[in-house]
Amino acid sequence: MSILKQIEQELSWLDANNVYDLTRGKPAPAQLDISQKILSQIEIPYEMDGIDLRNYGNPEGLPSARKLGSKILSSNFDETIALDNSSLTLMHQVVSCSLFLGFDKSNLNKDSKIICPVPGYDRHFKLLENFGVSMITVPFQDDGPDLDAVKEVLDNESDVHGIVCVPRHSNPTGHTYSDQNVHELFKLFQPYNKNFSIMWDNAYACHDLEKTIEQTPADKIAKELGMHENFFQVGSTSKITLAGAGISFLSSSKNNINKFIDFRNAITPGPNKLNQGLHVKYFKLISIEDQMAELSKVITPKFDLVKKYIAPLRDESLCDYTSPTGGYFFSFDSKKNNAAEIIQTCEALGLRLLPVGSCFPYQRDPMNNNIRLAPTFPDLDALDKCMQIFSKVVKTLN
Amino acid sequence: MSILKQIEQELSWLDANNVYDLTRGKPAPAQLDISQKILSQIEIPYEMDGIDLRNYGNPEGLPSARKLGSKILSSNFDETIALDNSSLTLMHQVVSCSLFLGFDKSNLNKDSKIICPVPGYDRHFKLLENFGVSMITVPFQDDGPDLDAVKEVLDNESDVHGIVCVPRHSNPTGHTYSDQNVHELFKLFQPYNKNFSIMWDNAYACHDLEKTIEQTPADKIAKELGMHENFFQVGSTSKITLAGAGISFLSSSKNNINKFIDFRNAITPGPNKLNQGLHVKYFKLISIEDQMAELSKVITPKFDLVKKYIAPLRDESLCDYTSPTGGYFFSFDSKKNNAAEIIQTCEALGLRLLPVGSCFPYQRDPMNNNIRLAPTFPDLDALDKCMQIFSKVVKTLN
Repeated sequence: MSILKQIEQELSWLDANNVYDLTRGKPAPAQLDISQKILSQIEIPYEMDGIDLRNYGNPEGLPSARKLGSKILSSNFDETIALDNSSLTLMHQVVSCSLFLGFDKSNLNKDSKIICPVPGYDRHFKLLENFGVSMITVPFQDDGPDLDAVKEVLDNESDVHGIVCVPRHSNPTGHTYSDQNVHELFKLFQPYNKNFSIMWDNAYACHDLEKTIEQTPADKIAKELGMHENFFQVGSTSKITLAGAGISFLSSSKNNINKFIDFRNAITPGPNKLNQGLHVKYFKLISIEDQMAELSKVITPKFDLVKKYIAPLRDESLCDYTSPTGGYFFSFDSKKNNAAEIIQTCEALGLRLLPVGSCFPYQRDPMNNNIRLAPTFPDLDALDKCMQIFSKVVKTLN
Repeated sequence: MSILKQIEQELSWLDANNVYDLTRGKPAPAQLDISQKILSQIEIPYEMDGIDLRNYGNPEGLPSARKLGSKILSSNFDETIALDNSSLTLMHQVVSCSLFLGFDKSNLNKDSKIICPVPGYDRHFKLLENFGVSMITVPFQDDGPDLDAVKEVLDNESDVHGIVCVPRHSNPTGHTYSDQNVHELFKLFQPYNKNFSIMWDNAYACHDLEKTIEQTPADKIAKELGMHENFFQVGSTSKITLAGAGISFLSSSKNNINKFIDFRNAITPGPNKLNQGLHVKYFKLISIEDQMAELSKVITPKFDLVKKYIAPLRDESLCDYTSPTGGYFFSFDSKKNNAAEIIQTCEALGLRLLPVGSCFPYQRDPMNNNIRLAPTFPDLDALDKCMQIFSKVVKTLN
């Protein structure tokens, strides 16, 4: 009997018409309901901070929105700007500005190489790949990027001009960088600070589900080491309020911010300030902390459910994973190095997972062992079925 | 007596504390009030077309918003996508995609040269300059870009890979291209269609203030000539609803649209669909035509006022200008080739104008004669004062 037939027999509830999906880190409708309930109490603001929100202008964003951003990113107000609905688009624009105009100490070029801790965020890698810059992978140590590996890259490669990081609840591994790790990491970059870009995507800055270590704001560490001109931090409310309709933030040195606004002035007459005003009013009705606590009530049971299925697989030495204390993902490493086969078999049974290698630059998973699980979107019942399929496939392919 | 002193004496109401500003094409509060009044009647939609507007996804935009875009751009629904608040950002992304990934028949590179009818839109030129592509200017003929000049550029220059146009109520000259002009223009590009990008910024597609010639949708003309793969049209509701908080559109071949969405997927998890839904609901309460008619009531008296001041200057052979039938601008050409001096003197008297050369690539106005006047933002009284200063300066510097 084929493996597929065998699993289909064992999971008698399987229905060819049902599609189960663990591909994308999308919030569940139940999370979005929380935000909608609050938004429904708010009237669209047309004026705020003495500014006409309806018109063009204010390329740095609404002061009150920048204040919100500086709170989320733990950055200084005057080093933080508020922009539109995607921090990824911001990163694209920062890289574009670095490549074509250059910042004082960030001048990417076509020969530039960027250090990428892996597994990482697929869209970061695709974004960089599309610019034609090279990516060099490094693994993780417990508390952040593997420092020895980073040092080796810096020692042996030329034109290493940056790194891209998700420093808290890293996508997908869940790593949260320790202060010591960040300090030592930045120290390694110090000799290269004439042209080095630290792209710090703090997408999950306040997305703890369990107790997670405190972090000193990384721009403080960058400043201490004279590397503030090399530091670009982005974040957004996408996974705090509404996924597609949030606002994003950038923090960097004032010098870089000014340069970036100058660059942005050629590609937009300014951000959507109406949406910024809406977000400012939103967080007058609920604190960021309370909002995250509400969301956590929806997400935590899903994380627990995933663990219920994969912990036994680890006990059976079928896999390894870092247990995330927040964020949106699990990073599953098959001990049998058969990720492609697992993904393909799940797909055949109706469970969609990201293609093998998705969390690596150029979609190359050298070990063929990594699978990202994004458990937030399905409800608990659907997630349970997803995990039954997944777990059964992993066991059966053993 | 210095010229400044003389003017200050003649315009006795001048007040050093007042700033008069004709720099940017911003809608007036009175225009925005019209939109706010309608928006105030709308509840934010969270679901539309069977799609959860709150979540990520739908990189091509909400179907109903795409329908709105295809109406504004007179393009086909399935060749039109709806995105975020700035069509300029879209153009930046289209150029970025062409440069780095390439479309089938649009592959810009660092040696590319782009034809720019002048005077033109300053942000287009800055956007292209920042990418390092070269710009070659051509003048206008009555009904569009000067075809002989375009032919000469194509005959004599290598690597001419595109053109950037505002085909209706061109910014700032007000030219509206005739069908014949567009047809002949595209015919000139035909031999180069293996790598040619027609960037068609239809920002003022429905912004007529007086009777203006009808235009055959340019994508139809492009299709007839086998050049649909070379055609990229953008537009937005920025100057229809709210300047900073509108939605934008792109129309092109399905092939290009698919490639562009693929590119966009690496730089955003999708557009703000809430704002798209808001706009769809908006145009259920008022038609585009009625909205434009309302706005015209605010703008037309301002255009008339500008003409009242500059028509006599033309009669005195002090200037030349094309009388715009819509759009947002007047393009004033000094016959004395003293634009820099006029701008500087106005500035000293409290009237801000764009720096000389702003409507030319690299800010180089070879004749030192062009000044863009953007009369929409001030109210009639303030505009009258702006024009008194301007007119007095032009006459006095004669």
